Amino acid sequence: MNLPKTIRMTEVGPRDGLQNEAQTVSVADKVRFIDLLSQAGAAEIEVSSFVNPQWVPQLGDAAEVFARIKRRSGVVYSALVPNDRGLDGALEAGVDKVAVFTAASETFSQQNTNASIAQTIERFQPVIARAKQSKLLVRAYISCVVQCPYEGPVAPKQVRDVAAKLLDIGADEIDLGETIGVAVPTDIDSLYDGLAGLVQPADSTLHLHDTRGTALACAVRAMQLGVTSFDASCGGLGGCPYAPGAAGNLATDDLVYLCDRMGIETHVDLPKLFDAGRHIAGALGRGLRSRVFEASAEA
Amino acid sequence: MNLPKTIRMTEVGPRDGLQNEAQTVSVADKVRFIDLLSQAGAAEIEVSSFVNPQWVPQLGDAAEVFARIKRRSGVVYSALVPNDRGLDGALEAGVDKVAVFTAASETFSQQNTNASIAQTIERFQPVIARAKQSKLLVRAYISCVVQCPYEGPVAPKQVRDVAAKLLDIGADEIDLGETIGVAVPTDIDSLYDGLAGLVQPADSTLHLHDTRGTALACAVRAMQLGVTSFDASCGGLGGCPYAPGAAGNLATDDLVYLCDRMGIETHVDLPKLFDAGRHIAGALGRGLRSRVFEASAEA
Repeated sequence: MNLPKTIRMTEVGPRDGLQNEAQTVSVADKVRFIDLLSQAGAAEIEVSSFVNPQWVPQLGDAAEVFARIKRRSGVVYSALVPNDRGLDGALEAGVDKVAVFTAASETFSQQNTNASIAQTIERFQPVIARAKQSKLLVRAYISCVVQCPYEGPVAPKQVRDVAAKLLDIGADEIDLGETIGVAVPTDIDSLYDGLAGLVQPADSTLHLHDTRGTALACAVRAMQLGVTSFDASCGGLGGCPYAPGAAGNLATDDLVYLCDRMGIETHVDLPKLFDAGRHIAGALGRGLRSRVFEASAEA
Repeated sequence: MNLPKTIRMTEVGPRDGLQNEAQTVSVADKVRFIDLLSQAGAAEIEVSSFVNPQWVPQLGDAAEVFARIKRRSGVVYSALVPNDRGLDGALEAGVDKVAVFTAASETFSQQNTNASIAQTIERFQPVIARAKQSKLLVRAYISCVVQCPYEGPVAPKQVRDVAAKLLDIGADEIDLGETIGVAVPTDIDSLYDGLAGLVQPADSTLHLHDTRGTALACAVRAMQLGVTSFDASCGGLGGCPYAPGAAGNLATDDLVYLCDRMGIETHVDLPKLFDAGRHIAGALGRGLRSRVFEASAEA
């Protein structure tokens, strides 16, 4: 098989995972979770979101969490920023990187951000400009790159158009979000075919959900196509509150296990990742969805 | 992607699935389950096992189940037979096909069948000869084709040696059992590399377990290599009582969903398969492991 030698893991459990939990997690538990994740070897950790706490109360403590984590050298600590005010908070907190988010589907954009795709991009323009003045890297998420929970199938052309606009306004990294977990390997081919000449597989990040158990198969296909940067969530925490049935990000554990066994370096230590998973499972008072985590608990 | 146009599904839930359940399932519920599976479109159904009920009490009703199912034209109804006495029962029940089972690992063979690999093959010789006199097809399972729960990694050469002996004594079909659910796609390459010139991918059946969430990724890789026959278990029922931590066969639901979305014909109707899953989940009084089944229940 034609596979990369190494992949880069962005751990999104603290943000994309905890954002969707009904159970409140204390600042202390979040900080411990993030520190365990950095110790496990995550290259990048999406720590939180500087969004109005009215909208995402679970992440209203972003500043405090950033203040208390132990920054590990070499690890990129990032945060979501929806607007200028969010960027103020992120800059004050000393984040390494910010992320903006829009969608490839109009209806999803409206439901998720209360704005059209064009409006979100207009809103990002000054945010990205100011982030870059502050020497921050900027990730731009595009959700619903395969299907939208409201509109159904999303054409690769729509993804390409949005990606082009995001690159135009200065995004450093395009993060392709398969938000609802319906993708199969052939969708990954179509997605990257649609991006040909604009975003190379090796320059993108892929963000998969495992709602239907297909995320690992899609990740393997993406690696065959040259993708080397993946988002995943410790224990499979997460989902999307605006996407019905979108239970579960691709579990970091499952992807790391797969890569370890295929000889692909992730720099993440699986037993240490399980420590982080056990900690957050304890804080949430429930089990985790990762099959590898489950199997390790049984063994 | 280079993928087959169609694959052949063998449903092993009634045997490999129910064999491992603590909860007793009545003959009526088994019969209904099997009839729902044939109505859903399974090409082949492994109905039961004619093994000493002392060893597998859950399948002690094999004869009664065979007597009461509604045989659907074109569907192959098979059963496991460990020995001559098992074959007597299978012939009396009018099975279409029998399956014998051994392992690629000595320790597993001893633990699972109380015999060495060589002894199992010696025992199969007259069974296979007699089955073929009765015009029955013979499937031969090899378990632990990637790893053994006792011995660890299993060399592809060991699998090849056992396959060669099984073909020598007349097996029509080699079924490669990844019994403990540790495989990753590169293992599938190694497995078939080891069988080159003896068993072509297109002539084999692959039997995956999803213990670590890797089964679909392995199935896709196998399809890329030319495998077109897969075992799977409705709802992900099953495991292996002799293999610690081997929770869950590859769920038929998950494989059918994947194939439907990739344009690969399975002849299995997913909503009808869910009917079978709901029925057996009700009889067992528990949920099912299939992610697609879970997602459909949430939606």
